[in-house]
Amino acid sequence: MTSLAPVTGLDRGHPRHPLQAESLRERVDTTLQEFLLLRSAALAEVAPECVQIVDRITSMTSAGKRLRPAFLYWGWRGAGGENSQAAVNAAAALELFQAAALIHDDLIDASDLRRGMPAVHKQFEALHSQQSWQGDEAAFGLAGAVLTGDLCLVWTEELFSASGLSAEQLGRARPMFDRMRTELLGGQYLDVLSQVAPQADPLALVDRALRVIKFKSAKYSVEHPLLIGASAAGADDKLLAVYSEFGLATGEAFQLRDDVLGVFGDPATTGKPAGDDLREGKRTVLIGRTLQHSTPAQAETVHRLLGNPDLDQDGVQTLREIIVATGADTEIEKMIGAAIDRAEAALAGADLAEGPAREVLTGLLVAATDRVQ
Amino acid sequence: MTSLAPVTGLDRGHPRHPLQAESLRERVDTTLQEFLLLRSAALAEVAPECVQIVDRITSMTSAGKRLRPAFLYWGWRGAGGENSQAAVNAAAALELFQAAALIHDDLIDASDLRRGMPAVHKQFEALHSQQSWQGDEAAFGLAGAVLTGDLCLVWTEELFSASGLSAEQLGRARPMFDRMRTELLGGQYLDVLSQVAPQADPLALVDRALRVIKFKSAKYSVEHPLLIGASAAGADDKLLAVYSEFGLATGEAFQLRDDVLGVFGDPATTGKPAGDDLREGKRTVLIGRTLQHSTPAQAETVHRLLGNPDLDQDGVQTLREIIVATGADTEIEKMIGAAIDRAEAALAGADLAEGPAREVLTGLLVAATDRVQ
Repeated sequence: MTSLAPVTGLDRGHPRHPLQAESLRERVDTTLQEFLLLRSAALAEVAPECVQIVDRITSMTSAGKRLRPAFLYWGWRGAGGENSQAAVNAAAALELFQAAALIHDDLIDASDLRRGMPAVHKQFEALHSQQSWQGDEAAFGLAGAVLTGDLCLVWTEELFSASGLSAEQLGRARPMFDRMRTELLGGQYLDVLSQVAPQADPLALVDRALRVIKFKSAKYSVEHPLLIGASAAGADDKLLAVYSEFGLATGEAFQLRDDVLGVFGDPATTGKPAGDDLREGKRTVLIGRTLQHSTPAQAETVHRLLGNPDLDQDGVQTLREIIVATGADTEIEKMIGAAIDRAEAALAGADLAEGPAREVLTGLLVAATDRVQ
Repeated sequence: MTSLAPVTGLDRGHPRHPLQAESLRERVDTTLQEFLLLRSAALAEVAPECVQIVDRITSMTSAGKRLRPAFLYWGWRGAGGENSQAAVNAAAALELFQAAALIHDDLIDASDLRRGMPAVHKQFEALHSQQSWQGDEAAFGLAGAVLTGDLCLVWTEELFSASGLSAEQLGRARPMFDRMRTELLGGQYLDVLSQVAPQADPLALVDRALRVIKFKSAKYSVEHPLLIGASAAGADDKLLAVYSEFGLATGEAFQLRDDVLGVFGDPATTGKPAGDDLREGKRTVLIGRTLQHSTPAQAETVHRLLGNPDLDQDGVQTLREIIVATGADTEIEKMIGAAIDRAEAALAGADLAEGPAREVLTGLLVAATDRVQ
């Protein structure tokens, strides 16, 4: 399956597929750089110091897999949309929204690292400390991260509205663009609730975890981007339904893979300390299934260790062994496999426009759910 | 001057001006209620618990003077825009943006009260405590406030885009709508910087305070709303320039009045503890002028007491006495008077459309800068 990776249009440095004149990733990068340069000038009119904010946004948006822009853009192309800068602009807007979500999410979770770099609130704390400013550095970190995320939210809209898509195309895409943002934020709140008020019953825990996956990942990362692109291009209801099925299945597989990597992933590729999800106490489907099949002694150990911020490598190893012993990891791999099958079947039945869309969407499915990320 | 108050269209319960069939305030209230009801249903699809967020937004948007919507709406009417629900919708969107700004601002400033009620992060803390949820209640308060403010930002755009203004009207208004949001957030960051890195030189302090006023208040609260409404209505450059002059002067007077009330205001009408701005250590123009005219002993006292979160009533009184002794309060009153004169002169020269706009804008100037608020 990895032989498909080069056609995702995501990877810089990989050999390009002959059908793509320029990689989408580079076009999104350029679009974001140019947009942020203009915004930086607008902020500098308020005061030169405000440019500190844009530096942090650049650090957030310069990395990332560009999955969401790719789904938007190829959803558009598959529905007959032309290869246009307007579609790339609309796709790039999703990266600004993602930056906002990550900046605020890291603040909420008190996560200090993002892709191996200090999270934005930590960057502002460091600035406060370097400059020997007055007051509490954590309070300044919070202020900086809140306002930086807010600007990303505002600029998401600005880039989308000024993308160059026609008023008619924007009008068709906007309901889904709006829905995406409301549902992601609702999903994030539900995720927070699931940490402070975890279900005692493993089945209820799995049920809520699947709901968080649906709204915070499957819809947000795959289904909604596809549907925004497709709606803008004027796709019919049949194609929208197929995209929806493909998107939800791909997104479910993507998040389940992410949950597995959050426990078993290699810090060198995830950019996060090993077992970070265990330390954060995330109530994932993987944890729900583990608890469902645990002996009372195993369950007691899971409840005792999960969410302990000081969990050391031995603790992580203990939890990993219980997860494997209960067979929960094998079960999640089966769920991932089944979701990938559903996604492939949906795509096989899709009536897509001529061009590389089918091949690229298949490649994106692989890239989003690959064991090595 | 207070005889003009009933024509602002802001006051519920006041006798209505005969030219207005329905008060703008009531129309904005109804618009927000209906919009939030629909958004509440959308969030409930994620999970019923998410409706907790909308309850907090309702508590924020049900109060307030509706100044910004009034400036947008009457800027539109003065430029020849018709009495339409579309303009009211666009005006109401500003209240959602203001709610986002206040929710995040209270979190950043760790302000516990807003209009005499618990701030949104405190409301979420109380919910956490009532429900005896796990983890730290302050962390949950932060999460709730960040996500609630984010939803307000996203919904601002949603209500504005779906206002019913035509694509052409929206296209003309959007650059100013975008500028308003970027500059307000930049102004807020500058305000944060001015707390952590205050200028030692009183003149530089006044200079930065005036810059914060310009971007965080004058442009945001008055000039930009007026220009958004006027641009949507297709105003010519001449009227836009007059609105700009009127708006900046009115906004400056409005914020200077707010600064005076933050030190000398009656808690019963401001909804905040007496002298709250002193406890927060706000570097206002009032404080800058005080330091400029202080004796070394007075300046030492100001530096020692300003920004002390535990400042008691005696400390507030000491600072008030120094402000009065230096003549800074009289100087600010003169600045307010001069700004009101500039605003009145600008309006007198404005070529406005037939109708009540001139009278209402004059009333808004009075309402925004009145000594009793």
